[in-house]
Amino acid sequence: MPDVILQDVCARDGLQMEQRFVPTEQRIRLVDDLAAAGLTRIEVSSFVSPRAVPALADAAEVFRGIRRHEGVIYAALVPNAKGAERALAADADELNMVLSVSKTHNLANMRMTPQQSLEGFRAIAEMTLGAGKMLNGTIATAFGCPFEGPQQVSDVLGLVQSYLEMGCTGITLADTTGMANPRQIEELVRDVLALAGPKALTIHLHNTRGLGLANVLAAWRAGARRFDAALGGLGGCPFAPGASGNIATEDTAAMFSEMGVDTGIDLRGLLAIARQLPAIVGHDVPGQLAKAGLVQDLHPAPRPAP
Amino acid sequence: MPDVILQDVCARDGLQMEQRFVPTEQRIRLVDDLAAAGLTRIEVSSFVSPRAVPALADAAEVFRGIRRHEGVIYAALVPNAKGAERALAADADELNMVLSVSKTHNLANMRMTPQQSLEGFRAIAEMTLGAGKMLNGTIATAFGCPFEGPQQVSDVLGLVQSYLEMGCTGITLADTTGMANPRQIEELVRDVLALAGPKALTIHLHNTRGLGLANVLAAWRAGARRFDAALGGLGGCPFAPGASGNIATEDTAAMFSEMGVDTGIDLRGLLAIARQLPAIVGHDVPGQLAKAGLVQDLHPAPRPAP
Repeated sequence: MPDVILQDVCARDGLQMEQRFVPTEQRIRLVDDLAAAGLTRIEVSSFVSPRAVPALADAAEVFRGIRRHEGVIYAALVPNAKGAERALAADADELNMVLSVSKTHNLANMRMTPQQSLEGFRAIAEMTLGAGKMLNGTIATAFGCPFEGPQQVSDVLGLVQSYLEMGCTGITLADTTGMANPRQIEELVRDVLALAGPKALTIHLHNTRGLGLANVLAAWRAGARRFDAALGGLGGCPFAPGASGNIATEDTAAMFSEMGVDTGIDLRGLLAIARQLPAIVGHDVPGQLAKAGLVQDLHPAPRPAP
Repeated sequence: MPDVILQDVCARDGLQMEQRFVPTEQRIRLVDDLAAAGLTRIEVSSFVSPRAVPALADAAEVFRGIRRHEGVIYAALVPNAKGAERALAADADELNMVLSVSKTHNLANMRMTPQQSLEGFRAIAEMTLGAGKMLNGTIATAFGCPFEGPQQVSDVLGLVQSYLEMGCTGITLADTTGMANPRQIEELVRDVLALAGPKALTIHLHNTRGLGLANVLAAWRAGARRFDAALGGLGGCPFAPGASGNIATEDTAAMFSEMGVDTGIDLRGLLAIARQLPAIVGHDVPGQLAKAGLVQDLHPAPRPAP
């Protein structure tokens, strides 16, 4: 087992923000390439309404097209029972439910309160666990809401408890719009680990304000052992045009590798995929490692001018 | 006294990489604005040969033009005794000498070995201390050299010792091309703090591989209390075209502020200056906070679609 597990969410959280539709065969190839590079968790797509998120309308086709690597967990985001049905029909290994601890954020995105979201999730939980699949519960805006600001820790912990009671095998704390700071991360991670344990907890961070990897470091120091990240740092936040998106999988993997923390990922393989990403999405991406190269890749010494 | 001190190096390390010459009056305004925003240390320019670094040819004019704020230390980089003479004539408060621990890097940049650089610095030290000014010694490539790779810790510590014996009141460990990782930072910072103490040590980090603020966090945890940073994250590395430069002053200041660590900086004032920077240099800059805004600046809640 690696020391830390990275789940790549590029195909879902990254591509859902893209203006240009990325062809289905390229998504399939991306997921297959990530698995080949040693990623053991990949969020493949989201079974939302194609009208709501046209960028992910091909979720079922992508699941049908990928080559399943042994030991890799292929996850899908599901907003409701209808989505869960489709995800199970597509043979997703894990279903990921998302609600926001912020009432305003949940109302804006889901048109219901967080408690109403939770009620709706019970049907998903029953179907998923009945089908023998894994169930993850995500708490969005856990470190702050762009409309409401800071959230009550007790509210976050209450949702963790509800998810666990529902049978969730995984819990994700999401810093949806990049508002977290290292001190806050450490405190909340410690609190949630006490309820859920390191094998159940995933930390989902955005680099919106440049603090992404500092927050990874803080979470890891506090005991978190699983992180979401998107190849190339794709994704983004509607309130921060031009700012970074998710933390970049390759930058995160390189940081851990340099620290001597095993991720099980083939860094060179991952970097090669990351370098193809700008051509796939048609623009530059925020990830730094693809531009700078691995620390180990030295340069020839220049001859000093005579 | 603030808990942590940021020294802005945008006017020197940032602007020296720019293709387009930034007019002298804009540099003066930048330095004055930074002081007004609460920066207490500013590296204003470098007294190098104008032929070697034309981007900083106006060092003396900039020093002449700035309005000295009380309590602010205006520093200058000096490569040799000639530069030190000019810096002292310009009434710089602190002179900063730079050598690389990597022999190959120092040969490529200075055409001499690190030991030969040290010998040359003795004349600078004598002049500077004789004039009652502060003296800082920087060790470049302290966390790795793009030509040689990792450096011996004992070599770094030897240079620290030599700088201290020479009368340096400050020591800077520089991650010149962004090769450091948090674990390495913690170890080296601990070792150097044992020799130099937290009031003498500055950590100079680049965000070349996205690890800049994670490294700040690690250094701070290890006891470092002074950091270089450049407004907008300006600067860069010749071996990583398109990659980030220095850590951004505004992103770094916001991280500490969010963590409850006082920097003495007026964040809103700093952000206002950072937002003018793209117009000054004529291109987008890597800093994230200027794009995303402060965590405290909330957005109006959208009305859900009917």
